[in-house]
Amino acid sequence: MNQEELKKLLESIQKGDTDIDTGIQQIKNFTYSELGYAKIDHHRELRTGYPEVVFGENKSVEHLIGIARHFQERQSNLLITRITADRYNDMHKAIPELTYNSTARAVMLQYGRPAETESFIAVITAGTSDYAVAEEAAVTASFFGNRVERLFDVGVAGVHRLFNNWELIKNARVYVVVAGMEGALPSIIGGLVDKPVIAVPTSVGYGANFNGLSALLGMLTSCASGVSVVNIDNGFGAGYLASMINKL
Amino acid sequence: MNQEELKKLLESIQKGDTDIDTGIQQIKNFTYSELGYAKIDHHRELRTGYPEVVFGENKSVEHLIGIARHFQERQSNLLITRITADRYNDMHKAIPELTYNSTARAVMLQYGRPAETESFIAVITAGTSDYAVAEEAAVTASFFGNRVERLFDVGVAGVHRLFNNWELIKNARVYVVVAGMEGALPSIIGGLVDKPVIAVPTSVGYGANFNGLSALLGMLTSCASGVSVVNIDNGFGAGYLASMINKL
Amino acid sequence: MNQEELKKLLESIQKGDTDIDTGIQQIKNFTYSELGYAKIDHHRELRTGYPEVVFGENKSVEHLIGIARHFQERQSNLLITRITADRYNDMHKAIPELTYNSTARAVMLQYGRPAETESFIAVITAGTSDYAVAEEAAVTASFFGNRVERLFDVGVAGVHRLFNNWELIKNARVYVVVAGMEGALPSIIGGLVDKPVIAVPTSVGYGANFNGLSALLGMLTSCASGVSVVNIDNGFGAGYLASMINKL
Amino acid sequence: MNQEELKKLLESIQKGDTDIDTGIQQIKNFTYSELGYAKIDHHRELRTGYPEVVFGENKSVEHLIGIARHFQERQSNLLITRITADRYNDMHKAIPELTYNSTARAVMLQYGRPAETESFIAVITAGTSDYAVAEEAAVTASFFGNRVERLFDVGVAGVHRLFNNWELIKNARVYVVVAGMEGALPSIIGGLVDKPVIAVPTSVGYGANFNGLSALLGMLTSCASGVSVVNIDNGFGAGYLASMINKL
Amino acid sequence: MNQEELKKLLESIQKGDTDIDTGIQQIKNFTYSELGYAKIDHHRELRTGYPEVVFGENKSVEHLIGIARHFQERQSNLLITRITADRYNDMHKAIPELTYNSTARAVMLQYGRPAETESFIAVITAGTSDYAVAEEAAVTASFFGNRVERLFDVGVAGVHRLFNNWELIKNARVYVVVAGMEGALPSIIGGLVDKPVIAVPTSVGYGANFNGLSALLGMLTSCASGVSVVNIDNGFGAGYLASMINKL
Amino acid sequence: MNQEELKKLLESIQKGDTDIDTGIQQIKNFTYSELGYAKIDHHRELRTGYPEVVFGENKSVEHLIGIARHFQERQSNLLITRITADRYNDMHKAIPELTYNSTARAVMLQYGRPAETESFIAVITAGTSDYAVAEEAAVTASFFGNRVERLFDVGVAGVHRLFNNWELIKNARVYVVVAGMEGALPSIIGGLVDKPVIAVPTSVGYGANFNGLSALLGMLTSCASGVSVVNIDNGFGAGYLASMINKL
Amino acid sequence: MNQEELKKLLESIQKGDTDIDTGIQQIKNFTYSELGYAKIDHHRELRTGYPEVVFGENKSVEHLIGIARHFQERQSNLLITRITADRYNDMHKAIPELTYNSTARAVMLQYGRPAETESFIAVITAGTSDYAVAEEAAVTASFFGNRVERLFDVGVAGVHRLFNNWELIKNARVYVVVAGMEGALPSIIGGLVDKPVIAVPTSVGYGANFNGLSALLGMLTSCASGVSVVNIDNGFGAGYLASMINKL
Amino acid sequence: MNQEELKKLLESIQKGDTDIDTGIQQIKNFTYSELGYAKIDHHRELRTGYPEVVFGENKSVEHLIGIARHFQERQSNLLITRITADRYNDMHKAIPELTYNSTARAVMLQYGRPAETESFIAVITAGTSDYAVAEEAAVTASFFGNRVERLFDVGVAGVHRLFNNWELIKNARVYVVVAGMEGALPSIIGGLVDKPVIAVPTSVGYGANFNGLSALLGMLTSCASGVSVVNIDNGFGAGYLASMINKL
Repeated sequence: MNQEELKKLLESIQKGDTDIDTGIQQIKNFTYSELGYAKIDHHRELRTGYPEVVFGENKSVEHLIGIARHFQERQSNLLITRITADRYNDMHKAIPELTYNSTARAVMLQYGRPAETESFIAVITAGTSDYAVAEEAAVTASFFGNRVERLFDVGVAGVHRLFNNWELIKNARVYVVVAGMEGALPSIIGGLVDKPVIAVPTSVGYGANFNGLSALLGMLTSCASGVSVVNIDNGFGAGYLASMINKL
Repeated sequence: MNQEELKKLLESIQKGDTDIDTGIQQIKNFTYSELGYAKIDHHRELRTGYPEVVFGENKSVEHLIGIARHFQERQSNLLITRITADRYNDMHKAIPELTYNSTARAVMLQYGRPAETESFIAVITAGTSDYAVAEEAAVTASFFGNRVERLFDVGVAGVHRLFNNWELIKNARVYVVVAGMEGALPSIIGGLVDKPVIAVPTSVGYGANFNGLSALLGMLTSCASGVSVVNIDNGFGAGYLASMINKL
Repeated sequence: MNQEELKKLLESIQKGDTDIDTGIQQIKNFTYSELGYAKIDHHRELRTGYPEVVFGENKSVEHLIGIARHFQERQSNLLITRITADRYNDMHKAIPELTYNSTARAVMLQYGRPAETESFIAVITAGTSDYAVAEEAAVTASFFGNRVERLFDVGVAGVHRLFNNWELIKNARVYVVVAGMEGALPSIIGGLVDKPVIAVPTSVGYGANFNGLSALLGMLTSCASGVSVVNIDNGFGAGYLASMINKL
Repeated sequence: MNQEELKKLLESIQKGDTDIDTGIQQIKNFTYSELGYAKIDHHRELRTGYPEVVFGENKSVEHLIGIARHFQERQSNLLITRITADRYNDMHKAIPELTYNSTARAVMLQYGRPAETESFIAVITAGTSDYAVAEEAAVTASFFGNRVERLFDVGVAGVHRLFNNWELIKNARVYVVVAGMEGALPSIIGGLVDKPVIAVPTSVGYGANFNGLSALLGMLTSCASGVSVVNIDNGFGAGYLASMINKL
Repeated sequence: MNQEELKKLLESIQKGDTDIDTGIQQIKNFTYSELGYAKIDHHRELRTGYPEVVFGENKSVEHLIGIARHFQERQSNLLITRITADRYNDMHKAIPELTYNSTARAVMLQYGRPAETESFIAVITAGTSDYAVAEEAAVTASFFGNRVERLFDVGVAGVHRLFNNWELIKNARVYVVVAGMEGALPSIIGGLVDKPVIAVPTSVGYGANFNGLSALLGMLTSCASGVSVVNIDNGFGAGYLASMINKL
Repeated sequence: MNQEELKKLLESIQKGDTDIDTGIQQIKNFTYSELGYAKIDHHRELRTGYPEVVFGENKSVEHLIGIARHFQERQSNLLITRITADRYNDMHKAIPELTYNSTARAVMLQYGRPAETESFIAVITAGTSDYAVAEEAAVTASFFGNRVERLFDVGVAGVHRLFNNWELIKNARVYVVVAGMEGALPSIIGGLVDKPVIAVPTSVGYGANFNGLSALLGMLTSCASGVSVVNIDNGFGAGYLASMINKL
Repeated sequence: MNQEELKKLLESIQKGDTDIDTGIQQIKNFTYSELGYAKIDHHRELRTGYPEVVFGENKSVEHLIGIARHFQERQSNLLITRITADRYNDMHKAIPELTYNSTARAVMLQYGRPAETESFIAVITAGTSDYAVAEEAAVTASFFGNRVERLFDVGVAGVHRLFNNWELIKNARVYVVVAGMEGALPSIIGGLVDKPVIAVPTSVGYGANFNGLSALLGMLTSCASGVSVVNIDNGFGAGYLASMINKL
Repeated sequence: MNQEELKKLLESIQKGDTDIDTGIQQIKNFTYSELGYAKIDHHRELRTGYPEVVFGENKSVEHLIGIARHFQERQSNLLITRITADRYNDMHKAIPELTYNSTARAVMLQYGRPAETESFIAVITAGTSDYAVAEEAAVTASFFGNRVERLFDVGVAGVHRLFNNWELIKNARVYVVVAGMEGALPSIIGGLVDKPVIAVPTSVGYGANFNGLSALLGMLTSCASGVSVVNIDNGFGAGYLASMINKL
């Protein structure tokens, strides 16, 4: 609660427009719905401009259906990430309004779509194996109303594939660059453009990749400026941040 | 070289306005100055909108003076990072126009200042020990013409210090949040605001900090959205990226 | 064997009240029961005030039944941790008096309950995914006779959820704080209260979480005082220690 | 701010006893003193019952003197940790009331001493090399008014040295056990006593010790219950937590 | 080939007792049998006094049967480690003379038994979970003709269980001490005895155990002398080395 | 595109032999075929002399069939690595011309064979468990037209097996040496020969092997000169590089 | 205290030959001398057959002199390891009977020499840089009365240097093999001999050596049997263990 | 000793041309000179075609002078790496024929120069900070008679600098590519050329570079074929291997 809001509330109490118990209630009230197994943060949309997104991987189907019902009742948009097709099927039986993107493994509940931005986010991958993570980023950004352009399989081992798509690349407002193994693609793009590059290391690889460590360290130590990094395989986080920047 | 530029050049050649050897020369020509020990990337400013910044830590004073002279002759702005006071003194004797910020350990050559942005970057630290890294970020952002507001020592162990400065915090356009040890401050701020948070882990700490690893991993796994991470102690990188976002 | 006990035994031998072979036997006797595959430490309850607890994960069902029978015969309380539902079913068939908490994955044999403490242990989680580990802590503490209050899903990305439950939180005698990913919640709580905080890192997460390493390092380097850490996912250890402190 | 305090303040405002600007001021007011380079958390003592302790290692002598002056003016107790003798000498010249414990590397400002507790904290080390870290723990606990008993050099390679001091050990209310290398001592003590054991890994060792990692991992995986762990070499944290538990 | 053997061969050639092609053949001849997929080192028994032992984990059943047949034809003893019951059954069908120890997961082909040594090897474990690794050590040592005494579940969290078996322990000629988690048992035993202690870390544990790393580092940094370490879970290696020392 | 090629193209445009749009097309044209899910780099064979090789592990069977069809239509050679037998069967049904090496897990499409080189590549393993990785190297090198000689199971624990095959070894032009565990074999061979040794660490092993880390670090720190290292289990990479060197 | 000793003591008490207070005293009595800063374990020599050895690295010169005086008064042998020449000089001024081996960095106090064993310990290094660690092993073994033969600089990159000294090597009773970098030498020797090999990894190297990690992991995963490992640079531990085995 | 040489020797013995003691001597004789502190491997030049190179970092100046004298007497070429200017000065006083390259930190003794190869090795760096490591590679290759072309500061953040030097790059026979931080340059070059690329990670960087780990892992997981890796900062190893390949 920021100071201005507090002031208004206090004035209202002083004037008698608000009694004290109501005041206490109000202060507590812009917060969350208690489902027992989860506290749904409705205040979040007011506070950050973004609806709650649920990380689905470690939650039971029962809990996920319960959470989704809660949003369905309020006709609120909801994005649930990291859901396998099997688990989605169970959820869909309970709530037919849910939709699914199988590559991105994302479940959505969407009431009306935000107008799409004019400026776009470029989602670029080094290899075809980075596809799923990139789609999670793209789907997330689209869900929040951003125009997204995809460019896949343009990694550094055949760097001319990148340059051949330069016309497209050069006009983006923000870049999500997804790469596994040595994770070099964000460095190259970061050296060529004047817009923020969000680097997403993937766990694609084997051996000295150590589940994404090689790409992660490579991106963190990138010698190009304007590059920042999110967690390994965190397509959602990159899409969310790209949306935030694109809409500035 | 993008396609449009290539097309113009090719048309000029076809018309005979440009002969072939000149054409080859031009294609090679928007590039760099060769100093022998370094290739100064003048094309960079055209390409990315930012002048070359030199990472000073591993370069000899002789090389740094040579590079600075090169910019001095062109009356171009230059920022050199990670310079100790001793090394700066030697550089300053050779080029008196150089200025120095001792906390940020940054050397600058500045011909005219860009107009300051209206929107501002908030540079926030968890502890007083994160001061130097935060100053590097702030000085970098200022150098590129951004308004910067500082808020230091508001880490999670006394979280009310953060809330007491909420009025300032809430209006920033982008956040640079610097923290060592468990690196939790970016998560809290990221959960409260709707603007990008650039998290900078510092190597401040001991024991299980492992030279910044604890803060780095904590920031990468932040459960708040809108947070991305740069390298340990990389104040410059955070300031540069913040500038890029602030000026969008 | 402490000195006082030794003195009494020696005096009894000197007086002839105890013969030598009996003396040797007694010294060896406050120790354990030999099951071949395990040595059950009955002396432990005398020595530490707590009954033996069995870590069930790597033991065969046959051995676990054998151990449980041994306690059943003595009508002693027993807690077995880390048992899947399948394995519990096999155990229950053999010993119908066993009970099971499926979330905590804990098997219990309980003859009479200790009186519940007045002061309480607060078991708090950052996310809903930390639920199972937290339940193991809560069930353990309850088993030993402690009043337990639970507060789940109040992590730092929506820190107001924590403050809205302050009334409950502030009155605990000891805190068990369970968190994965960046593990920041113990730092915040540790900065607000004047009671011991036992931090439990969980392996919930992905990528740079590295199976709980990020939360573990974050908690160890917490800048709040009064925080100590147990092993990753070690809900039992936290509940046990919290009981020990609560009963001081 | 907890709900009760808020209620009282709101009632006072409603009655007109407190005007609105004063109300805002009061809410902000239980906080900190701003020194520019640091925010001193006076609210902490009210909130947690403990005065601010300053981690001295990465702060300049000028800043440390400034902070100490601030406490001196208020005649408040202050503990500064990790100060070398050289730096202390400079501080002492500025503020002669400061005292120093050279083994623990701790600087103190102490106005009146709290009454010493009857129950005591046992501070135990595995080797003589763990002496400095143990002293930091002991000095911290004493500073907060606890009776402390020391037992040094009783590590597992000569485990009879531990048993010979059993009379002393068995009566403590809480244990701080300091060990480097394999860090096994907390496990043994934890298996014998029924009170909390705070394990402090030290960076004493070489090779596979990896700066304290071996002791840290050993303590975290201790097979004894009732053991929790603080950061490598964190004598202060252990002493602080031991005091918190001892005073329950 | 050592010098003495070479000398004899050369003399035989010089005298004409051995022709040159035979000489070359003989030099190559004390070596191995080529199975295509493996080179069986018959020279090994002459060279080191021990028959070849086959690490079975990564080999196909077909190859293992082929290798075993080769020994069967020569009526030579053979030990194959790390074989699951399923794979053993397939091998046994092909070669009925094979026997199996299911705990140790060891397959044996044994023609006559070596006389058992008088002196014995003590195989000791910290917990019941270390049972399988300890049995691999014990079975290996027995296979090579050593008397073995077992003592299981005497870890440091109930150290009196160790002392109660002191009579047995003190008379061993060499110790194999198997422990997971913090791996402290070898340090205690090493501090009490004057014979070599071979420490075997196990991967038993979770969290900060990191698949045996905690026990491994703990054993390597043991503050007791006379302790050396083999690979994680390497019961075979410990049993082999113990046999070598016991038979000196 | 190198300068010479650019010059020819520009001259052709200047003369009017090539119009501008065609020129642009041609510059873009020596590149790749767009399959949507992949960009097949036909330019690669011109650029590096080697056909595209596809890393099959993380690609769907549908995509792999699509890629293979693309090469089938052009009657181009294709090598796909890391394909299990099950997946190969599905691919073979769609494209009967595909062949398979089950040990190397390699799928091939081969139109005409390159003439085999006279000089040969020696592929050597330390153990029989390193067989699969070595076969991947050997099959790759054969596919590109190299003569390959195999020598398996000659690791350092029976070093005479290596010397007995010296006649073969000494004549190779380049060595691929595959080893797990301590990875010592490349050091020994590197100390004996005057040709390049490509060391391939394998993930064969357990415990302190840490999925190939021990072999990887051992090979990187080899005290023999002329040794370089590829990724853990990267038989393909070693075979490819060996071919490149053999054909110089 | 083993059972037999306890029995004798109890009988003596029962007969009245020993009174109770004396009995308690005797039980406590076979222990240590208390120096305040250290507990000297005189019982150790009785218990393990070896005098106390002091790890000197982290102790003050004052403490070391105090400890040495204590042994000097008893005319007991003493070995202090890891002492720089400077620190030795200060110790020598105080106690002129101390002697020093500067390569091994070992300080000795020696009253009479044990008769040298007939069988010998071979101390072998891979490189000249492993010299200091090897000397610590050799000096330790000599101090305890063992015949020691040295063989330096016979690493695997020139493996014939090892074979040329085979005559010496083959007759040892136990091997201490010291190596840095890839640490392969113990594997080779272990494959050739039938006696125990104690492997000592050294921190000699750079880069992927990671302060001895590469050699440590290599030795732990050695494919030769009969090899065990001590801590990085732990020459003392290897010499001590070798002596223990040699004297069996 | 290979079979052919053995055969000749045996025939000579059989014929009586060589007596037995001489035969033994000859077999031992193609080996090394014993300096006590080192075994100089003269056989190496015969065996591998390269003279001994001495890694100077951990050796005393006395030993280095001794080794150099040994070569001086034989008028043999010698290369000593990793020598600081101070140590070189001491060596030069003793042996004035020694020369020094201060950037590469290499000491040389050179009697006649080998003819320079026609084909050349390209030594390329990503940044100016990788200069010293690259020079070590270049000086090593030159010492062995190779033509070397240098190209410095062409890293991926300004990738056009690389393309502008394509004319030079494309004609090399083998590449040594030196890079710190994310180590991406070898991937790009490897994707463009058809010759072997030797990647050298450097420890240049900070934070998540972890002393070269980021570059090392990046290079090992390079998605370009034809790339192999040597140890961090191992310029010598890369130059040596490049020479071996260039001279094939």
